[in-house]
Amino acid sequence: MSAPQHGQIVAPDGGSVRKLLRVTAPVDLAAIDPRSTPGLPPTEVTGERPKTWARDQVELVGGELGRQQEMLYAMATAASDRPARRVLLVLQAMDCGGKDGTIKRVAGAMNPLGLHIRSFGPPTPQELRHDFLWRIRRALPPPGYVGMFNRSHYEDVLIARVGSLVPEATWRARYDEINSFERELADGGVTLVKVMLHISYAEQGERLLERLTDPRKHWKYNPSDVDARAQWDDYQAAYAEALSRCGTDAAPWFVVPADRKWYRDWAVAHLLRETFDTLNLGYPPADFDVAHERDRLSVGGAGRSGPQMNSR
Amino acid sequence: MSAPQHGQIVAPDGGSVRKLLRVTAPVDLAAIDPRSTPGLPPTEVTGERPKTWARDQVELVGGELGRQQEMLYAMATAASDRPARRVLLVLQAMDCGGKDGTIKRVAGAMNPLGLHIRSFGPPTPQELRHDFLWRIRRALPPPGYVGMFNRSHYEDVLIARVGSLVPEATWRARYDEINSFERELADGGVTLVKVMLHISYAEQGERLLERLTDPRKHWKYNPSDVDARAQWDDYQAAYAEALSRCGTDAAPWFVVPADRKWYRDWAVAHLLRETFDTLNLGYPPADFDVAHERDRLSVGGAGRSGPQMNSR
Repeated sequence: MSAPQHGQIVAPDGGSVRKLLRVTAPVDLAAIDPRSTPGLPPTEVTGERPKTWARDQVELVGGELGRQQEMLYAMATAASDRPARRVLLVLQAMDCGGKDGTIKRVAGAMNPLGLHIRSFGPPTPQELRHDFLWRIRRALPPPGYVGMFNRSHYEDVLIARVGSLVPEATWRARYDEINSFERELADGGVTLVKVMLHISYAEQGERLLERLTDPRKHWKYNPSDVDARAQWDDYQAAYAEALSRCGTDAAPWFVVPADRKWYRDWAVAHLLRETFDTLNLGYPPADFDVAHERDRLSVGGAGRSGPQMNSR
Repeated sequence: MSAPQHGQIVAPDGGSVRKLLRVTAPVDLAAIDPRSTPGLPPTEVTGERPKTWARDQVELVGGELGRQQEMLYAMATAASDRPARRVLLVLQAMDCGGKDGTIKRVAGAMNPLGLHIRSFGPPTPQELRHDFLWRIRRALPPPGYVGMFNRSHYEDVLIARVGSLVPEATWRARYDEINSFERELADGGVTLVKVMLHISYAEQGERLLERLTDPRKHWKYNPSDVDARAQWDDYQAAYAEALSRCGTDAAPWFVVPADRKWYRDWAVAHLLRETFDTLNLGYPPADFDVAHERDRLSVGGAGRSGPQMNSR
């Protein structure tokens, strides 16, 4: 974040990854190549090493996101900006899809003080006593913050469906419940960016094998991952329906091809940048008399005898 | 975080900022120069621009902290490591002392996924209905996380004392209560690093003036800051007593000279690095049969007809 940066942010080819990556019903995941790189500028721009170029761009975009974050936070302190605005990135993916890596790279280039990152695992006994959105509501970012959800309420129409954790009537009803919930969030000042990181079956296999091969990665491996992998087609169908049913103007879904990690990070960073651009943020005006405060400060600094300590 | 890094981490002069910056009773803040740079290597090492050198070092140390974070998190997933360990950085300072900036720079160089950052403002009505440690307990980092407290329970013996928010008998009793609480945390696997960022009266004046001069910083300014500044000596005395009474082996206090921001960030990064070194972290062994899982994975990848989608 503080490393010296060279160059400038280059806009995605075609101007907007929000347009290129947005999906609407009916969503056909098989038609989206997980190795593709929509919006990536041509080689004349990126040079022969697009990976290195994209990583540098993520750092640059991260700096810009940090400036936007500060304005978002500053605006939330002003009583005039109500409902106070928030941004919420929802990340979903198959196992090994790169949710952690995306947060590490993209959030890692932003200001940690304004981030509100939450991961959702299997529901706890306490969480299971409530409706599926209860734990989600408790994890929403406060006003002025950028939230990032590592998994989300969408698990309740994904693993809950494929694993038959609840009756079909229950998960079928959830699509509408999610749409109502997200509509409510949008009305309350939350700008949602929902991203599915889209990896291929082959890429998942390679990444799982890597976790089994490198002892430093054993802790990331869970035998249940292979069970879920055996249900790949069912999961893809569940994703397609969730994206089709819950991709709304208030809370759009984006599919980011994610076999190439560097493209994935670059695309998510630009999705956030373009989302911030739609907010037209600025700094709030002072809610105090600036000249008066300057007078008070100069009196405190020179007009008294000064502190006993640290007077050097 | 992902920017290409050159060079290697250089240890502080004398080997350990934990030793150089640790304070024990009686603490005399007036004897510590806020512009000093204890442990900073000599010019032969840093070159003529120690600021640039220190910022590069913070990025390098941040990368190392990221690796330590991952092991801390991995260990917390292993049932053998109980009580599960956590690290908690407590940051205290006068207004404009640089708490936000330190988090931005140091946490910004780490992995955001393993961070648990909490800021404490004036207590809410709900918080005031409980004892002063109630909101602190709720904000503790989960096992495996690195917590950072932007202000903390120490406000309850600082502003609560100087501003006479509670009777003297109440805040006087809190030193022992804090020591018991922190002893309990340490026994529960929490490694505490308590840091006072030590700025001078003159430097605070300059930073406040900057907030009044730059319209993009007006939102950071609060007229009450000047009121607190008028009580500088009282605050310094309150800090000195808190550091003297609550600097224990289980939860030591460190004073970081903070007039120079680049030194401040460098020192805090090394304090964290040296703290991690005392934990001797590693990766937990696999709690599953690695060979068996590799077999299962290869069957799933090649032995079935393969998924209908994403089969390219």
